Formats: sequence, C-alpha cells, structure tokens
Amino acid sequence: MKIALIRVRTLPDILIMDNHGSAIEKAFPGLKVTPYCIEDQHSGVYDEESEAKAIPKVARIGKQIRDADAIVVSCAADPGVSQLKKELRVPVVGAGEAVARVSKTLGTSVGVITITGNVPAVIRADLGPQLRAWRKVAEVTTALDLESEKSGEGVLAAAGELVGQGCDVIALACTGFCTIGIASVINKRFQVPVVDPVWAAGAVLYTTYLANR
Amino acid sequence: MKIALIRVRTLPDILIMDNHGSAIEKAFPGLKVTPYCIEDQHSGVYDEESEAKAIPKVARIGKQIRDADAIVVSCAADPGVSQLKKELRVPVVGAGEAVARVSKTLGTSVGVITITGNVPAVIRADLGPQLRAWRKVAEVTTALDLESEKSGEGVLAAAGELVGQGCDVIALACTGFCTIGIASVINKRFQVPVVDPVWAAGAVLYTTYLANR
Repeated sequence: MKIALIRVRTLPDILIMDNHGSAIEKAFPGLKVTPYCIEDQHSGVYDEESEAKAIPKVARIGKQIRDADAIVVSCAADPGVSQLKKELRVPVVGAGEAVARVSKTLGTSVGVITITGNVPAVIRADLGPQLRAWRKVAEVTTALDLESEKSGEGVLAAAGELVGQGCDVIALACTGFCTIGIASVINKRFQVPVVDPVWAAGAVLYTTYLANR
Repeated sequence: MKIALIRVRTLPDILIMDNHGSAIEKAFPGLKVTPYCIEDQHSGVYDEESEAKAIPKVARIGKQIRDADAIVVSCAADPGVSQLKKELRVPVVGAGEAVARVSKTLGTSVGVITITGNVPAVIRADLGPQLRAWRKVAEVTTALDLESEKSGEGVLAAAGELVGQGCDVIALACTGFCTIGIASVINKRFQVPVVDPVWAAGAVLYTTYLANR
C-alpha cells in the first residue's frame, strides 16, 4: 500500500523528510511511504498564521500526488485535510484527527501535550468533554525546538503534570514528537498509554491495508 | 502486550473462541490475546434485549480479569464498555467505537453494514453526519447466520448498494464479519476501504504497544 506523507515543514534533505515515513514503515509492515514537504516554511506550523499559510500549500501538493493509495498530512493541526478529503478519492488522514480519535478510544480523560499556546482546534473539537487537561512544552515554540537537547525534560514535565491531574492517556499534539521518539520515553516513565500522532495515522490506514492484502 | 478479548457469544471451543484473538495477533505482531466469552448466550448480541442481557455479563468478566494490559470487547454494540472504562485502570476498547472512529477518519461518507435492524447506537452517535447510509444483510439475524454459505453474497449485495449510494468507506458493524473474513472480499470486489471492527480495535491498541516496546 503506497502512502504519500506530506510534511508541513520545509526540509532540505530526503532522509530528514522521511523520518515520519520510516516511523510508519517500521511500525506497520506492508505500508510504503513517499514523503513530500511544503515549500518556504522552514519553521513548520506553530500558530494560527503559519497554519493558515500551510493550508493552500498542503492542498496543492495533495492534489498533485498521483499513484498513492492514501495520503497522510503529518501535522496535528490537520491543515488542508478537510479540503483534500472533499476533493480526492483516496483516504486522506490528518495526524490531528487520528491522534484525537485513537486517544479518546484508549482512555476516558485525555491529556494533550502541545508546542503551541492552545490545543489544535481539530483535536479540541474531536475530544470534546474527554479533553481533561493540556500542557504546552516549556521553552518550545516550533517543532524545531523539540530537537534541542533540553526539550525531552520539558515534555516529561508536561506529561507528569497531566498524569498528576488524572489523565489516563496522553495525546501528543505535534508530529515533531514523533521525530524525537518521545512517546516511548513518556510511557516508560509514567506507565500510561501515549499516542504518537504519526503512529495513530498509520494505525488508521493499516486497517485498510489488512483488508487489501 | 497482553490483551484480554471478551466475546459476547457463548462458545464451546477455545479455538473458535480465539478466532478474533488470532485475527489481532496475525495482524499486529507483538499483541498477545487471551479470549473470554460470556455465559449462557449462544446467539450472541443481535437486538436490544440480547444487548441488555450481555452488559452485566461483560462487565462481570472484565472486572475479574487480572494480568491484562488492555481489554477488547468484541461486539460492535459495545456492551459493558462504558462501565468497564470507568472502573478499570487499563484501556478498554469497544469494537463499535473503534470501527466508527477509524471509518470516519478514512472517509467522508461512511456506509455501515449490520446484522440487526438498526445501526448500533454507539456507532450512530460517533459517526454523526458522516453516516451516509446503512444496510442490514438480508436473511441474517445473528452473527451465527453469517457463517452460513449464502451470507457472503448478502454482505456483498449490501456493500454494493452502499458504494452505489456514494459511500467512500464501509464499516462492518458486527464482529461476526471478522469471523468470516469478509472485509477482504468486499475490498477486492469494490475497491473501497473496508474497516473490520476487530482489526480496528487492534489498531487502536497497537499504537500504545508501539510506545511500550
């Protein structure tokens, strides 16, 4: 099954660009991912303005993709996802909707970790009353900042606060958390289910792959 | 990761009882499933009365289970699921909520195939306006009937009508559809994504397994 994965951050290198794709390929044998990235947006999506800029870029790339059985938009804000769902015939999965829906199925009280000053609107709407609490990672503004040496401690501090507030599942509301592989670290520290948004999108698509083998 | 899977149909044989478990184990390497089934309900859950009878039985079994990292209730009506979610500390996933949420993420217009005279309430509520249409399989009343020789054609006829109505994803609203492996048959015939409810529950849990390796 061929998946086109659209990164919402301009990346210079195919290997970096492909790290979300390889996270999916390693987790879900049989899925083959080709990465794409939007142009001229080196800090990615991290606030309303950058999200608004990304929407037409994601939509344009998505509409140009041929020869994919499905598309993943690898951003927890799901920029361009609703447009592409309307216009394309293949499944289009946003990492935001996927992480929200998987998380609310796993737990009753979802704790959301963000890099932005709010929970992405699509995740907030989908979780509804199951959104128990959320935390922004301290001293992080964009997904790039997550790659700094100190960010891991900030994520763990946020997770600890959410678990302390009674959250029984942690939803990671930025696909930059996949890049640094932090879901496993949080799980080992707090023994709570943690949902990586890229894996969540992969899991949703994997169900159709299973029926298509 | 150890998963307890509760069948809502009384089954005499561990091999039959385990066919949903083995569907999960084959699809998601690393998940290990132990099957359970409710007592004294040989026709399973197929209407409001049988669903009401199953709820306390599922809840009782679920509360007695020790040594499981998660529980799957293998019925698209999710009997006992909300109670168990409140009372247990491990994730409890209903096949109904899982198939609804995965399906609505894959497509915009969900077509639901049932064995009963209505769409299970949990699936209807979760799909909301994305529920485009639904069909009951002709001449089938319980999950047992699905195992008859002629049921496959009935399922394909229902799927064909839903695709003809513009549904872009098919949700199978009975875990008996997993027993007969019909998702792949529908997918091959109509080239539309088809979501098996047992695989959907497995996919949701697999995301937490990935973070726990």
